[in-house]
Amino acid sequence: MGQLVFIGLGLFDEKDLTVRMVEEIKTANAIFVEMYTSLMPGFSMLRLEALVGKKVTQVSRHLLEDENGELILKAAKKGKVVFLVPGDPLIATTHVDLRIRAVQQGVATRILHGASIVSAVVGLSGLQNYKFGRSVTIPFPQSTFTSTTPYEVITQNQEMGLHTLCYLDIQAKAQRYMTIKEGLEVLLTLESRVENQVISLDTVVLGVARAGSPDPVVKAGSIKEVTNVEFGPPPHSLIIPGDLHFMEADALVTLAEGPEQLRKKAR
Amino acid sequence: MGQLVFIGLGLFDEKDLTVRMVEEIKTANAIFVEMYTSLMPGFSMLRLEALVGKKVTQVSRHLLEDENGELILKAAKKGKVVFLVPGDPLIATTHVDLRIRAVQQGVATRILHGASIVSAVVGLSGLQNYKFGRSVTIPFPQSTFTSTTPYEVITQNQEMGLHTLCYLDIQAKAQRYMTIKEGLEVLLTLESRVENQVISLDTVVLGVARAGSPDPVVKAGSIKEVTNVEFGPPPHSLIIPGDLHFMEADALVTLAEGPEQLRKKAR
Repeated sequence: MGQLVFIGLGLFDEKDLTVRMVEEIKTANAIFVEMYTSLMPGFSMLRLEALVGKKVTQVSRHLLEDENGELILKAAKKGKVVFLVPGDPLIATTHVDLRIRAVQQGVATRILHGASIVSAVVGLSGLQNYKFGRSVTIPFPQSTFTSTTPYEVITQNQEMGLHTLCYLDIQAKAQRYMTIKEGLEVLLTLESRVENQVISLDTVVLGVARAGSPDPVVKAGSIKEVTNVEFGPPPHSLIIPGDLHFMEADALVTLAEGPEQLRKKAR
Repeated sequence: MGQLVFIGLGLFDEKDLTVRMVEEIKTANAIFVEMYTSLMPGFSMLRLEALVGKKVTQVSRHLLEDENGELILKAAKKGKVVFLVPGDPLIATTHVDLRIRAVQQGVATRILHGASIVSAVVGLSGLQNYKFGRSVTIPFPQSTFTSTTPYEVITQNQEMGLHTLCYLDIQAKAQRYMTIKEGLEVLLTLESRVENQVISLDTVVLGVARAGSPDPVVKAGSIKEVTNVEFGPPPHSLIIPGDLHFMEADALVTLAEGPEQLRKKAR
């Protein structure tokens, strides 16, 4: 019986593979990788192939979503297939779908977890994990429709004093990655439409660029300030903090150059 | 100037170190590890030392929390120190505190992220990341006081249709790790005290044992059913699902042996 092993590549480059993952890949009959659900800024196919000593096939969104990953499933019925995915492999819904399909077709599955933006951004922020409410993706605005979901999620979390982690949209095919500045513009636009007085130029936010890379940038401040910070290349993420504990205020000031007055509002 | 590198060991054993982490450790002047914030069931100090070819010093909660990690900070002022932590290293609040202290004392810090229970349990469950509300730890009941926080967090999330990830308490010194069965007993006890009709024997829950190990167990069902499942050794985690999307119901049935009728409640 075949098997399909989901492997999480982590956040930056091929050296984020674990010792176990390298062993696992070396004994695989076929190796696939996708690079469209997240951006790994240091990743190189050539260096990956050199590290594992094998040929790796890159698969597209089309193959996974329109063709339901049939190429991968077909190979996994005949032998051991590894499927390399940025971050932690089953955070992307599309890969959960592939796993369900595999199990339903009699293919055994395993997961080797990698470092994920989900915990990395929380860790870099210094904010406490259990004080985050639900997270949300800020999508690129469309000419005809802009979703108000990010605004609603932030509002709901703020009412409970909780932090909001905002993932920023990715259009990998167009190599378009939303910046912190663009994300903040979307939020201000939503405020001007919904007018619930949740977001203003004085709202304190935290921008995180290139989490998991050797040169992450983490900066807290008002939207007015953070909009003008040069965060450098993608990927970017955004946090809208809720109520701050003393130590969280300390973290934002010390680790993220946040304004000293954050300490006054902490409790 | 010295530096302190926080390294996330991941979830199971020393082979969860990444290629980059092994390189980083090999060039360190001193190596510390803590093993009390999470349980890595396959971890061996001897095998870790063999893998990196260096002596590793294990530090206690006492050293980190009562003595503020002075031993580590002192070493980090003189050279490059790596500090190995289970999971993703800055999810534990105590390590954020150490990082703040380091920066305030002029020590540069870096983070190499590891796989975290935060994303691994979500991935194993097949539930969608952005539908999780805030998470909570279920603490061991005390003779004089049992916190109602877990009950309140679950109630709040349920009202919004969101899932709740419950971490289960760890008393590493006593080698005491809360099981799924014990966690469910705490929730039922809280229900009998608060009486908000949020938790009953028919409530659907998801137990996850040994996330990130070669033999994780993931089982969905009513509390009545899941209480009687033999999950095996720790660590254990618990999810209380909120409203289910079709694909989430599919995941619970296909990947977690959940009851077929979950599909009827999905939308």
